[in-house]
Amino acid sequence: MQSFDLDKTDVSKLKQAISGDNEQLKATLAEYHASEIAILFESISSEDRERIINLLDIEIASEVISEMHEEAHPEELLLQLHPDKRTEIVEELDYDDATDIISQLEEHEQKEILGDLSEDDASSIRNLLSYDEETAGGLMNTEVIRINLNLTKKDAIDEIIRQSEEIEEFYTVNVVDDHNIFKGIVSLKDIIKAKGNAKITDMVNADVVYVKAGTDQEEVAKLISQYNLTSIPVVDDEMHLLGRVTFDDVIDVLEDENTEDFLKISGVSEDEELSGNWIEAVKSRLPWLIINLGTAFLASAVVRHYENTLNHLAVLSAYMVIIAGMGGNAATQALAVTVRRISLNDLTDNQAYRTVLKEFTVGLINGAVTGLIVFAFAYFFDANPMLGFVIFLAMTGNLVIAGITGSSIPLILKRVGIDPAIASSIIITTFTDVFGFLLLLGLASKLLL
Amino acid sequence: MQSFDLDKTDVSKLKQAISGDNEQLKATLAEYHASEIAILFESISSEDRERIINLLDIEIASEVISEMHEEAHPEELLLQLHPDKRTEIVEELDYDDATDIISQLEEHEQKEILGDLSEDDASSIRNLLSYDEETAGGLMNTEVIRINLNLTKKDAIDEIIRQSEEIEEFYTVNVVDDHNIFKGIVSLKDIIKAKGNAKITDMVNADVVYVKAGTDQEEVAKLISQYNLTSIPVVDDEMHLLGRVTFDDVIDVLEDENTEDFLKISGVSEDEELSGNWIEAVKSRLPWLIINLGTAFLASAVVRHYENTLNHLAVLSAYMVIIAGMGGNAATQALAVTVRRISLNDLTDNQAYRTVLKEFTVGLINGAVTGLIVFAFAYFFDANPMLGFVIFLAMTGNLVIAGITGSSIPLILKRVGIDPAIASSIIITTFTDVFGFLLLLGLASKLLL
Repeated sequence: MQSFDLDKTDVSKLKQAISGDNEQLKATLAEYHASEIAILFESISSEDRERIINLLDIEIASEVISEMHEEAHPEELLLQLHPDKRTEIVEELDYDDATDIISQLEEHEQKEILGDLSEDDASSIRNLLSYDEETAGGLMNTEVIRINLNLTKKDAIDEIIRQSEEIEEFYTVNVVDDHNIFKGIVSLKDIIKAKGNAKITDMVNADVVYVKAGTDQEEVAKLISQYNLTSIPVVDDEMHLLGRVTFDDVIDVLEDENTEDFLKISGVSEDEELSGNWIEAVKSRLPWLIINLGTAFLASAVVRHYENTLNHLAVLSAYMVIIAGMGGNAATQALAVTVRRISLNDLTDNQAYRTVLKEFTVGLINGAVTGLIVFAFAYFFDANPMLGFVIFLAMTGNLVIAGITGSSIPLILKRVGIDPAIASSIIITTFTDVFGFLLLLGLASKLLL
Repeated sequence: MQSFDLDKTDVSKLKQAISGDNEQLKATLAEYHASEIAILFESISSEDRERIINLLDIEIASEVISEMHEEAHPEELLLQLHPDKRTEIVEELDYDDATDIISQLEEHEQKEILGDLSEDDASSIRNLLSYDEETAGGLMNTEVIRINLNLTKKDAIDEIIRQSEEIEEFYTVNVVDDHNIFKGIVSLKDIIKAKGNAKITDMVNADVVYVKAGTDQEEVAKLISQYNLTSIPVVDDEMHLLGRVTFDDVIDVLEDENTEDFLKISGVSEDEELSGNWIEAVKSRLPWLIINLGTAFLASAVVRHYENTLNHLAVLSAYMVIIAGMGGNAATQALAVTVRRISLNDLTDNQAYRTVLKEFTVGLINGAVTGLIVFAFAYFFDANPMLGFVIFLAMTGNLVIAGITGSSIPLILKRVGIDPAIASSIIITTFTDVFGFLLLLGLASKLLL
């Protein structure tokens, strides 16, 4: 039994075992679960990975490969292996896992691997490859327990036991008619509890949630999470049962979607792999920085417009920095709360309106409090109460703008069907920079010169 | 069967039904799943919620209450109800759900509700209330299927059927000895497949993952997600079986943890409720803004230090804005990628080193490219190539600093045991503001005056 997590000791233990002979390495590997070996793989060379895969039983080897993170590139490991070994492993993999891995390869590599498989396996995987990766069809596993509506209790149990030889884990039993039309689900518990002569049709639960193959993965994840499902059936437009998506796939989807939002709001392209190299990172981030540069020129144009004011009162430069920094951060706060809230739940018009009103109020109060602090500083340090008053007004005004734009822009984007996380801090801080400088320098030129 | 999501039509349909008589309302409610009614509850008044709960069957009513978001305050609804109704509902709730809701109440309110329950139920909930909300003990449900190691196949099936009358959903069967010491799990499938005279002890799987009651919820979520478990057994220090945490609780934990990270990195307190009112939002954000104000004074002190330089070359003010904005955004990018990566996986020392090196490279390249654009602008627009050269150096230097601080600060915080998401954009942009101004104004005072 295990109740521990992996740490550096495990990595160095494995590395030491790698430097030893095969027997020693096998003994060390036996101490770990396949998903742990998959994590340890991230710290060793590709040659060592290949050696370990060749040492492991085929069931464990395929589980290790299916548990490797996408970013550790299991498909490259697969290509490295001897074709016979590779075929064994792919045939052992669940179809959905095999498809996920194979889909990362070039077309000619995909053909090579599929060509070595049995016609049955190859066509199942080819079929799955045809679905968009980010839909229920792309996520689903076609290996499900399916029994006919007309079976008796006894025949159903025999059939389930027979099918479960090939399907390691199942949580619900799918019921179909003679034409594979999905009719509902039944739990193993209900079948066991039923009287001896009962038929499946008497116990089937038809009031179940299911999805079409084309349903977006985010929607699938929401349904599984909302209805607390272990798995959700996937059907085609004619209600033929195609497969199931299980809760563990959905946990991965949720983490991926969260990563995307997290990156997007910070001005990083959603496709950047977290552990990618610098070339990918430059490609992902430089376009956003260039957009930011464009918006920064806009802010700097405002400053140039008031060059005369700045020449008369150079200390305004120092306060510009404060107003812009505070506006940017207040906008980022409002943006984060709003984007996260939208991504967890749709808002009604009334809720959206109240959100913007709330952010207006928060901006007003936070702006007035921090504005007062800066007023006090200008009063005592620069001995210029009128300057302090201008800064107080600019700070309050800018934090109100921060609250309104930080909340309303993602809400508007959502309404018009654009991903609200696109309203990244880059876009939002443009507003606070431009308006902050306009307020500070505009008021200063009117009231102080 | 359903494959749809809720929308505004559903809300207005319910509101219309509310304005009608009880029969009409009941008929409308019958069209929705309990978790859907829980969502619709967010759009109606607390009086209407109470009326609906009183109309629903007790099983559905308790499910609605257990599915309500924490932010919709199910505990307030519970308090509103007639004590008899309330007791019925609490007794129908799973212990873990009842505990979650009751824990939100004042102590005297908790006592009142617990006092009306049977002694058995009250003590179970009191026991659960004693665990920290964010641990396995706080998450777990004490109602699990547990069978004795020494049962035969037939007795085990009878026992499971008997226990499953009270436990609606179960995925694995827990095996204990005569002293309730946890011995492993067995699947219903394996029991059914076993020969008639087989004993549970022959089929129990002892190599399973479990957690202690005090294990942090984030750790529990990681294990469930890593090992693809539907549920994980919870034991005390003497290995007595206490309960189980199920995958659906963990999906909620993951979303909560993601929300916390998302907010923290944007300088919002992790406790701020997304749909909270403006008072909570001010309390959560003002402290961060005041910290930011302190750091902004630091940046503005740098500007004051070079007041003389700015007096000689006022256009530098306009470029300051660009350098600071770009540095802040590049740092936010590096920060987001690094924080998200750490939160999904621990990094080895070597991986941490390579991450910082990568961010250094990315900063150098993105800085040089955007620096060249600004150089060209200064050359053609301000006709001042030397000024352009200074800006180019400052931009490149600042984006390198952005990359190094954005990646190394969260990594260092993680090493010393502080939540890396605390390294919010507020902290990081201080570095880029201060160093950006130092570079730009320092180089300008040396090279341009």
